[in-house]
Amino acid sequence: MKHADHAPVPEFAVWAGRPGLLARTLAAIMPVDAAAADAAAARAAELAIPAGSLGRMLALSVRLAGIQRSLAPAFPRKAVVVMAGDHGVVRRGVSAFPAEVTPQMVANFARGRAAINALAVAAGARVVVTDVGVAADLPAVVGLRPVTTVAEALAAGAVLHRKVRCGTDDLSSGPAMTCEEATAAIEAGIDVVEGLVAQGLDLVATGDMGIGNTTPSSALACVFTGRAPSEVTGRGTGIDDPALERKRQVVEEALAVNRPDPADPLGALAAVGGLEIAGIAGVILGAAAAGIPVLVDGFISTAGALVACALAPAARDYLIAAHRSLEPGHRVMLEHLGVEPLLDLDLRLGEGTGATLAMPLVDGAAALIGTMATFAEAGVSEAGVSEAGVSEAGVAEAGVAESTGLEADAVGA
Amino acid sequence: MKHADHAPVPEFAVWAGRPGLLARTLAAIMPVDAAAADAAAARAAELAIPAGSLGRMLALSVRLAGIQRSLAPAFPRKAVVVMAGDHGVVRRGVSAFPAEVTPQMVANFARGRAAINALAVAAGARVVVTDVGVAADLPAVVGLRPVTTVAEALAAGAVLHRKVRCGTDDLSSGPAMTCEEATAAIEAGIDVVEGLVAQGLDLVATGDMGIGNTTPSSALACVFTGRAPSEVTGRGTGIDDPALERKRQVVEEALAVNRPDPADPLGALAAVGGLEIAGIAGVILGAAAAGIPVLVDGFISTAGALVACALAPAARDYLIAAHRSLEPGHRVMLEHLGVEPLLDLDLRLGEGTGATLAMPLVDGAAALIGTMATFAEAGVSEAGVSEAGVSEAGVAEAGVAESTGLEADAVGA
Repeated sequence: MKHADHAPVPEFAVWAGRPGLLARTLAAIMPVDAAAADAAAARAAELAIPAGSLGRMLALSVRLAGIQRSLAPAFPRKAVVVMAGDHGVVRRGVSAFPAEVTPQMVANFARGRAAINALAVAAGARVVVTDVGVAADLPAVVGLRPVTTVAEALAAGAVLHRKVRCGTDDLSSGPAMTCEEATAAIEAGIDVVEGLVAQGLDLVATGDMGIGNTTPSSALACVFTGRAPSEVTGRGTGIDDPALERKRQVVEEALAVNRPDPADPLGALAAVGGLEIAGIAGVILGAAAAGIPVLVDGFISTAGALVACALAPAARDYLIAAHRSLEPGHRVMLEHLGVEPLLDLDLRLGEGTGATLAMPLVDGAAALIGTMATFAEAGVSEAGVSEAGVSEAGVAEAGVAESTGLEADAVGA
Repeated sequence: MKHADHAPVPEFAVWAGRPGLLARTLAAIMPVDAAAADAAAARAAELAIPAGSLGRMLALSVRLAGIQRSLAPAFPRKAVVVMAGDHGVVRRGVSAFPAEVTPQMVANFARGRAAINALAVAAGARVVVTDVGVAADLPAVVGLRPVTTVAEALAAGAVLHRKVRCGTDDLSSGPAMTCEEATAAIEAGIDVVEGLVAQGLDLVATGDMGIGNTTPSSALACVFTGRAPSEVTGRGTGIDDPALERKRQVVEEALAVNRPDPADPLGALAAVGGLEIAGIAGVILGAAAAGIPVLVDGFISTAGALVACALAPAARDYLIAAHRSLEPGHRVMLEHLGVEPLLDLDLRLGEGTGATLAMPLVDGAAALIGTMATFAEAGVSEAGVSEAGVSEAGVAEAGVAESTGLEADAVGA
């Protein structure tokens, strides 16, 4: 079977990578410091609020304090990394949009007019648009300026050039890419985070662009959660019933022809994944290695998180699930990872939109533990005092009310 | 039956109010302009995203654009109004905390050390702490400086003095307050919003403080939704089973002795409500009259919204439900109002914390409609194009794959 009729790989398209980067990064990922986490939990327990009344926000505070090893954590320097790539499987009719939308949307990101740009401005985050595998010559097709450093990529009209190859092969008829290519795409994600850290980074979010990428994400969901294609394959950008049936069949075929093994995460990623999914896994691994919390967006990004956590289970300590996508497989993935997302707004756009929307919740959680007074500091009486007070005065008063017959009046009224 | 042993009403405690303010405000509340709402919906439908993929965020964008009559709405000037009051019913043992916590927490707010302060700083919102009915002499008890204007109230250590009376009477044995007092407390809320508008205000959030205030809120939930006390009365700040049983009984008694009528919202508020709940209703009405969206916090604030929407149904157009509280009656209230909250984070603190956490979502929604490109502007191909492409190339290709026997191989593998 012939490959997709990709655009020819332009000369600038080969990114050399940095030898050994993935292995070094995996070795650098450590669980969150237990003493820091314990100190954060102890402080949270003393804050002047009824126990549990800040719900999941205080739990997030404690996590953030542990990650940053500070009782006053702060995350002013934010970025969202949008990884873009194409998919040979699009030829199977699994998407409502044609593949040429990938470069068109990448151009829209680079020019600051997409949903992710709007939300990033609102959240005070920088956007790094990274081409890790778009099947088009971006300068020729959409007039973008490929750049090679993160600093340059922050300029309007620029796209960070980390193209490993021009889209994947059709995963329903063989491996989507080689293990070397998957490694290079992961390393591209690690490298972007390292570039951002060099500029100053406290919080990073993942984002994706790639027509057809819910299909490999569904396949990866099957690999790592053990669920059937029918349980985790949804409508993506909005396909109709025949296309959905075709898409499920394609996922079945991809699993049958490649037989991906969850014990070999890199092999599974290469077989049924995508270049931008690999890049996202790299962003997560890079953030974990740097001790930086990473907001994971929706279905595609969480497929990357499945790979990242399979490669380095301790990476999960740094992962914050941002939102629950409408895509049915997302819930399955989140349950498998054992994480509860912060938002549930019926989003299914990707780009990093859900992750970026959740950024202010991270700021809020950090502010809570960092600035609130404890009961002692605020001079606020704690719960339970009233129980004594009630038994001495309040309930006695209630007893008086009963003896006056007021309750009887009330019942009879 | 004697009243609660309130602190003596100090000389400064009587706020004269502005005659006729409530009636004038109700008359000024108009539904959102239909033409503006239609224009916003039309713009939203053209944005370069798959239909529906921004879920509830785009619906919020459309609402905000309609309210502000702008296709580029913006909400930079934010405030949260925390209304504080006490409750005679606390003597019945309905709260885990003693009543003296109300002035202690008001002091904590005024000094900037509470959860609401932390979140307001993170959201870029000012906090106006308003004493509409605390049963204590705040200067004497906690050293606060009572001030009479909103501008002064923004200073540290100050509390806006709008005290109508020193706490309500015990609603389980008669009306909590008079209709005149309830009106004055509503007008206090309207007046605060007008004061903020005079300084510049784009978005306001409601907040509450008042030990015992889940009891009147439960009673108001019964009045306006028709549900039974057992369905809408919960643990508040964390009472145990016997106290919960007592609290449900108290709500039963309050309804039986007062027989509040949902067709007389002001009378119902006076009978089984609270001063801070009235103040919150006033904030909502004031915001609606000024054409400003109002983020409604949790259980207590939504009790205020029930009153506000009963008094002026068009106020609902300006109301944004911020979060779903853990308090069981909150879900019932939200369903009655027909609103879906933005956040669901297991919060049950009040203070305006959930409403303030939702402020960045308002900024995000505004940015989406205000800055995103349409399909035409971005030069992005729309959905459906691929369906044709698929039938011409993709499916034909898939057919080729089938004819090669790959599917059969796959199934047999």
